[in-house]
Amino acid sequence: MRTVFFKNKPAILAASSVGGPKESAGRLGEYIELKADNDTFGETTFEKAEKKMLYTAIKNSIENAHKEIADIDAIIAGDLLDQIISATFSARSFDAGYLGVYNACATFTEALTLGATMIDGGYLRSVVCGTSSHFSSAERQYRYPLEFGCTRPPQAQWTVTGAGACVIGKGEGPKIISATVGRVIDFGVTDVNNMGAAMAPAAADTLCTHFKETGLTPKDYDIIVSGDLGVLGSKLLVDLIWQKGYDISKNHIDCGEMVYKIDEKEYQGGSGAGCSSMTFCSYFYKKLREKKFKKILLMATGALLSSISSQQGESIPGIAHAVSIES
Amino acid sequence: MRTVFFKNKPAILAASSVGGPKESAGRLGEYIELKADNDTFGETTFEKAEKKMLYTAIKNSIENAHKEIADIDAIIAGDLLDQIISATFSARSFDAGYLGVYNACATFTEALTLGATMIDGGYLRSVVCGTSSHFSSAERQYRYPLEFGCTRPPQAQWTVTGAGACVIGKGEGPKIISATVGRVIDFGVTDVNNMGAAMAPAAADTLCTHFKETGLTPKDYDIIVSGDLGVLGSKLLVDLIWQKGYDISKNHIDCGEMVYKIDEKEYQGGSGAGCSSMTFCSYFYKKLREKKFKKILLMATGALLSSISSQQGESIPGIAHAVSIES
Repeated sequence: MRTVFFKNKPAILAASSVGGPKESAGRLGEYIELKADNDTFGETTFEKAEKKMLYTAIKNSIENAHKEIADIDAIIAGDLLDQIISATFSARSFDAGYLGVYNACATFTEALTLGATMIDGGYLRSVVCGTSSHFSSAERQYRYPLEFGCTRPPQAQWTVTGAGACVIGKGEGPKIISATVGRVIDFGVTDVNNMGAAMAPAAADTLCTHFKETGLTPKDYDIIVSGDLGVLGSKLLVDLIWQKGYDISKNHIDCGEMVYKIDEKEYQGGSGAGCSSMTFCSYFYKKLREKKFKKILLMATGALLSSISSQQGESIPGIAHAVSIES
Repeated sequence: MRTVFFKNKPAILAASSVGGPKESAGRLGEYIELKADNDTFGETTFEKAEKKMLYTAIKNSIENAHKEIADIDAIIAGDLLDQIISATFSARSFDAGYLGVYNACATFTEALTLGATMIDGGYLRSVVCGTSSHFSSAERQYRYPLEFGCTRPPQAQWTVTGAGACVIGKGEGPKIISATVGRVIDFGVTDVNNMGAAMAPAAADTLCTHFKETGLTPKDYDIIVSGDLGVLGSKLLVDLIWQKGYDISKNHIDCGEMVYKIDEKEYQGGSGAGCSSMTFCSYFYKKLREKKFKKILLMATGALLSSISSQQGESIPGIAHAVSIES
């Protein structure tokens, strides 16, 4: 069994999101709480900007929950940068415990799973779960520095510049019902520009496991939200899961597909550890609060690689964790 | 409250350790389960060697627990390499859930904390917690490639080449009683060769918090084991905690101090995410099993930096998570 059931249904008490200029001008713009004027967010480097975005999302989510930092027992956070420095240096500013997590772009639902467990069992009182990413810090770490002016291939996604964080505790708010922990699935994809294809098999595996272990079907969810498969990856997911006997073609949506007003530059849509967190903590959280969605399955998806693993000939496995949330 | 209490006292059912040649020739040699003949462990790169060591420790710990991989619901693992690729690519070989964690050299007790929570609350049936590090992969990632022949300063530690993993579940074995989640503490240390000084304040903070929140005193433990503060860092910890009214001078030991037969090259002793896991999963696990130790506090300590954070002028904060274990 890889599905965790939460008997006490921990609540997502509040959420907060920060978006870069491109994200704020996109389709989620009206839902993003704090819109950055520029992509350095008043800092001197992209890495420091990313850290400030995550810090801000964490701080604002605590304020939105009408809590003090003293009420928060732990921050569970991660990001795409080496040694998850955005999360670490954000956590440094808060007088709370810190648990660093990393599953690439699936980190947000990993954090939600662990945070909900801590709250459900009464182990901690309140936790904040948050993740971030930044287009420019990710590009120069994983691919090429922007100054190099590399041409992007059509299968590429655009790493979201943004962050999202939410407070989990006991109280009023959308409830976390269950979570399915993903496996590392490798279909041998080696193209660092084609993350959607690398992640789709892992997403299909987690989704099938979730349905099998919970006894639910796609129809039980108002909407099934994948993290950042992008346009191509989403098509692959719908096809892969169809072969297993599940039809999600009617109620599946992908955060990566939602985030931008698609123009030619982003190609497949958004990606990054901040893609699912920023989207959930803005649009979906609001819609759950308004009861426009009654039951959603949020499944962030991650491509597990490093520049070293790619240089040494490794393929890119994927992972996906699914979290079931009711308004 | 940053201390988590485990009502059902999850058991550490089995453990396994892998050590590099230098570690196997050290003081823990007779306790290390698998001693590598050479530091590439039959692989072509140091990174692949590290991954194989962690994979081997995970596999052997499952065998030692007389379990099948189908019994393991999740692997909770991390390491020092960018994007924790040792943990990820190890997890790829097992048909189990995967939760990647990162708190530098404090990752092992972070994993134990999360794993024990999952088991204690009945959320998962069995989990494996493991971490690894490798001297040569860490040197070239964090400092200089070995080929550069850089002189090591006397405050430097030696990253342990090795891995440790253990299976947590319900059953017979040393019990996990409680865990204190650490905070990110920054005293402004900027010397990447002086990790002990960077981590000692975080270790002191976690230790004080543990004593306050559990009502225990240093005397309640047979031994208080820090992760890898090294010789200098250990002295700092004993002094810092003395100032807070706790005397651990009689029953404190540091994994980093234990691992090597101290000669001039290692200077302050061992470090690395594999230091505490290899030491715990060899020597301490055996002594707990033999009831030579009845109650120990294992507190792995981590220095939270990346090459980018140091290049951009950041100091090195520390973190420590403490796990209380009874035979």
